[in-house]
Amino acid sequence: MRITLRVIGIGPGGPRQVTLQAIDAMSDVDAFLALEKGTAKSGLLDARRVILDAHAREGYSLVEIPDPPRDRAPADYDAEVRRWHAARADLIATALRDEVGDGGVAAFLVWGDPALYDSTLRIVDDLSARDDLELTVEVIPGVTSASALTAAHGIVANRVGEPIHITTGRRLADTPAGADANQIVMLDADLAFRHTADPDDHIWWGAYVGTDDEILISGRVGDVTGQIVEARADARERIGWIMDIYLLRKASRPA
Amino acid sequence: MRITLRVIGIGPGGPRQVTLQAIDAMSDVDAFLALEKGTAKSGLLDARRVILDAHAREGYSLVEIPDPPRDRAPADYDAEVRRWHAARADLIATALRDEVGDGGVAAFLVWGDPALYDSTLRIVDDLSARDDLELTVEVIPGVTSASALTAAHGIVANRVGEPIHITTGRRLADTPAGADANQIVMLDADLAFRHTADPDDHIWWGAYVGTDDEILISGRVGDVTGQIVEARADARERIGWIMDIYLLRKASRPA
Ligand SMILES: C[S@@+](CC[C@H](N)C(=O)[O-])C[C@H]1O[C@@H](n2cnc3c(N)ncnc32)[C@H](O)[C@@H]1O
Ligand SMILES: C[S@@+](CC[C@H](N)C(=O)[O-])C[C@H]1O[C@@H](n2cnc3c(N)ncnc32)[C@H](O)[C@@H]1O
Repeated sequence: MRITLRVIGIGPGGPRQVTLQAIDAMSDVDAFLALEKGTAKSGLLDARRVILDAHAREGYSLVEIPDPPRDRAPADYDAEVRRWHAARADLIATALRDEVGDGGVAAFLVWGDPALYDSTLRIVDDLSARDDLELTVEVIPGVTSASALTAAHGIVANRVGEPIHITTGRRLADTPAGADANQIVMLDADLAFRHTADPDDHIWWGAYVGTDDEILISGRVGDVTGQIVEARADARERIGWIMDIYLLRKASRPA
Repeated sequence: MRITLRVIGIGPGGPRQVTLQAIDAMSDVDAFLALEKGTAKSGLLDARRVILDAHAREGYSLVEIPDPPRDRAPADYDAEVRRWHAARADLIATALRDEVGDGGVAAFLVWGDPALYDSTLRIVDDLSARDDLELTVEVIPGVTSASALTAAHGIVANRVGEPIHITTGRRLADTPAGADANQIVMLDADLAFRHTADPDDHIWWGAYVGTDDEILISGRVGDVTGQIVEARADARERIGWIMDIYLLRKASRPA
């Protein structure tokens, strides 16, 4: 079965943050595939619906692929992950056969940009390895949540000539000195900067950036940490889920 | 004089890589300002014209701000840079007075995303400091050339959980070990990876990414370096200017 499979970056949340190229790519899709990994609870599914209602052809089909059951405490971790990935590829292949068919076009919508901390392209690699599918993969870049953050604060990510390090909350403490002049931190459930930053460093924090719920706080780490902790807890309680990101800048340029 | 000043990211080159938010932001602008720093020769001015013709209101005004003269070998470097920045801010303020007027809307179009190695927001800061202007600044994020590169190659920028380091050709050799698992290198006139990468590292290189002239080469550094050097020199000769970027990945995960 030959299938064109598009992986479409839709930007960080707002329906106007979609590119014309993404809209073009949505226009002739036979079925949109949605991987249900926690998206429902986070309101991302709603955002996707709004974008599809606006840009996909009338009567578009949206197929939700449930997560296959997974053993969270397996004897052989790697083998279980491989088994789980294969089970997921099976479900997707079945959906492609049933909902798209030979010569058709399927698409995944990806939050932000597909190249940044997103597993969709890895899943597509698993699919491409199957003998029964001949995939033509097309990737459409999107605006990242990092760009949404810096735009919302009206700042440049780097001081003149300096590098930018993008990392996760889990890995923040591992950033070597000399790479930490400007750090963009994603996937941080615990505001890890509290354990790594100096009080004189500067932080620009944002939650739900680019959406109607956007919250922005910035300042000297020593001054605004308490405010961020509180705003984050409040928002999470009120909205039911949280999506936040920040830029951390060292007080002094590295020598 | 009160002015709304928009800094609009227009993506990495293709006219379809503009977001709806950028199009909205272009629709009611009184004057677009273009800083002429080498853009003419690089064909960027043409790309901007194509985008404005498609999305700005009929009869839009595009004002080219020439670079003020600059002493390249001054006795006091910092003082000369400050003087030069002030002279540029004067030229822009004059253009705002003549072409926009009190209560009007002006805009800069920025290649890619305004937060990434771009000086427009610094220039806007200089302007904001002037007593005669009361600016309301709005920044519209755009798709970066980094996202265009990874999309064109169909890859994720990071292996699972790993950080991503964005740097320039000039600073590439300074990246500390442990920060170099995945590096995106911009502003590199000299293919600096030739002096830093191991033959077993992997490179994904792209020139004019997202435009009709796009060239892509990827592979083991030891295998494709010669090919990249040649393709870059050829393209530069043929097209008259070059714009390229690459992702460099360490062969083995850092421990
Ligand atoms: C799985 S990653 C996906 C990133 C996405 N591919 C991108 O390009 O932005 C999810 C993380 O992105 C960040 N994020 C995504 N959208 C965001 C938004 N609108 N506001 C704040 N953070 C956001 C958060 O740090 C979140 O933990
Ligand atoms: C002054 S920086 C501006 C970057 C821009 N703000 C962005 O978000 O991509 C210029 C550098 O961006 C990269 N670049 C921009 N557009 C590109 C494209 N279409 N193809 C390849 N590289 C590009 C090149 O490395 C170039 O030296």
